[in-house]
Amino acid sequence: MTRSRLHTARTALGTLDALLVTSLPNIRYLTGFTGSSGLAVLTHNRRVLITDSRYREQSAREASGWRRVISAAGIFDTALSSGALRGCRSVGFESATISYADYRRLRSVLPGVHLVPTRGIVEGVALVKDGRELALLRRAIRISEKVFGEILGLLRPGMREREVAAEITFRQRREGAERDSFDPIVTSGSRSALPHARAGERKLRAGEPIILDFGCMVGGYNSDLTRTVCLGTAPRRLRDIHAIVLHAHNAAVEAVRPGIPAKELDASARQCIAGAGYGKRFIHSLGHGLGLRVHEPPRIAPTSSEIIQEGAVITIEPGIYLPKFGGVRIEDDVLVTKRGARMLTGLSRELVVL
Amino acid sequence: MTRSRLHTARTALGTLDALLVTSLPNIRYLTGFTGSSGLAVLTHNRRVLITDSRYREQSAREASGWRRVISAAGIFDTALSSGALRGCRSVGFESATISYADYRRLRSVLPGVHLVPTRGIVEGVALVKDGRELALLRRAIRISEKVFGEILGLLRPGMREREVAAEITFRQRREGAERDSFDPIVTSGSRSALPHARAGERKLRAGEPIILDFGCMVGGYNSDLTRTVCLGTAPRRLRDIHAIVLHAHNAAVEAVRPGIPAKELDASARQCIAGAGYGKRFIHSLGHGLGLRVHEPPRIAPTSSEIIQEGAVITIEPGIYLPKFGGVRIEDDVLVTKRGARMLTGLSRELVVL
Repeated sequence: MTRSRLHTARTALGTLDALLVTSLPNIRYLTGFTGSSGLAVLTHNRRVLITDSRYREQSAREASGWRRVISAAGIFDTALSSGALRGCRSVGFESATISYADYRRLRSVLPGVHLVPTRGIVEGVALVKDGRELALLRRAIRISEKVFGEILGLLRPGMREREVAAEITFRQRREGAERDSFDPIVTSGSRSALPHARAGERKLRAGEPIILDFGCMVGGYNSDLTRTVCLGTAPRRLRDIHAIVLHAHNAAVEAVRPGIPAKELDASARQCIAGAGYGKRFIHSLGHGLGLRVHEPPRIAPTSSEIIQEGAVITIEPGIYLPKFGGVRIEDDVLVTKRGARMLTGLSRELVVL
Repeated sequence: MTRSRLHTARTALGTLDALLVTSLPNIRYLTGFTGSSGLAVLTHNRRVLITDSRYREQSAREASGWRRVISAAGIFDTALSSGALRGCRSVGFESATISYADYRRLRSVLPGVHLVPTRGIVEGVALVKDGRELALLRRAIRISEKVFGEILGLLRPGMREREVAAEITFRQRREGAERDSFDPIVTSGSRSALPHARAGERKLRAGEPIILDFGCMVGGYNSDLTRTVCLGTAPRRLRDIHAIVLHAHNAAVEAVRPGIPAKELDASARQCIAGAGYGKRFIHSLGHGLGLRVHEPPRIAPTSSEIIQEGAVITIEPGIYLPKFGGVRIEDDVLVTKRGARMLTGLSRELVVL
């Protein structure tokens, strides 16, 4: 696996002699190293991982195949002194994640080198998942689905959103997750109309929408799952907008295929919602790539310029949000195959009425 | 409170006409805004918070006193078009956190402006805590202490480190924490010799050191607490090194006073441990500032050049780590007052034998 990643990453270097990888998820992707501090130097015939003495043992265990150098001074100084960049004239760095101060340090350490700002080189390679990555994603998704089922058994009017979130986190960890993908979103009633709210002090009530949006990490890979729930009888308006969102969700899943522009995929769902008169109430993008980061390329939005690729894992998550009333969102994780979408999430997409 | 912060921050601008604050904890500190995307522009007579339409309501509620501008294009473009920087020639930016790509964007949007890389301006102001901040820190510490007591009642041989961590996270949230300060560290036996390990699959056993290091966030402020525990009879070696670490901890607490160099404070504990023959086994710094970030200035290490200031909250956390055997760490949160250390952590610092 890793060998093929390296090969693809080296091809993606193009005319660069080397790439300095500073983003931690990208370092993990290429080397396997999970520490909190490091620099991976990838050239066409060398690969060197630089970290500090705290990670001497761990880096040896995790980054097999990589030459490891333990840095006593700064990691950029070590990149130079270790010879990892010997003969390299054109050296790329990850411009979207390196800090300006680190860039200045890099600049001063490598005065004779042509430093090239790059974006998304490793992300582009990591976008297409291999079998091992898919297995980890599936395990993370299975845990979140199991916990979703358990949570349905706990929900009662009077329970606070924050308490539901605490149960989600606890149960995902108990099932073997490393951690949450992100702080669980549990929003109820009018708060469910705020797609970026988390879990608050509000108490659940009967007859209101409750949005549960959470995920967990297994082996570094993240699940991401949303369902909308109602305690007691669901009001007509909630059932109506849920049906529209579900229709839009189905349309998007149908539209998934390698080669479709991401903005067209977004439009497939957005048109359904707009056609039903709620176009202005779908106030976020349709989805995003999923992997070592919860949000990774492609971005699936009206303004995207990306193309959906075979082997990518993406979320499909349309929603409708009515101020004061509340919202509905349905989110699944989907693998892009030659034949279209393969659903990785297996839960029913119907409105859950408890 | 906020008025005094602003006054201090404006004084800290020095000869700068404006500071562009991009670090989220710093934005929260100055404006109260807790969203995930924003830019705060602070000049000597203006204060403008720029964010996007997702945060229209939330920013109005949280950032009172700040002029708010909802950005449709990029936040830097909006900084220009909103007039927030009118008349400003010398504009500081936060060089340690802004990405190189964002810096380039800034550079292209403000061609006529002298951009000045800055470090630690807001962090320096935020280092001294006011009464409201101390109250939040105390609440976070109380929650962690209560949960520590509950966890002691749960620990059994055979329980996995990961399960203990899940209980910590769950219970802190249940007590009202927003989230963990960081993923709980639960390390047992030989793993407790790795100060940077988290919680793994290892099962707790009797007669081994177990290090519990965790904290939680309340109102944005973080607690950080470590104790070492043993199930069953503690072996002699464990009791011995615990006594040395406790002695070093007490020495450091005694040494705390405004004006002491951070490296001298570090030395006060390090000398005790070295004097007992374990100097090479205390493999991290003595402590760090605590507040809106779990790690903030001052860094309390042998190489620090900082001075301990009155009103800062710091951790004191000496440790000894013996490969293959395990480790001991004792960590408290301490307020620096005129009269020396005021302990914010109230738990016993003795070795806990269950």
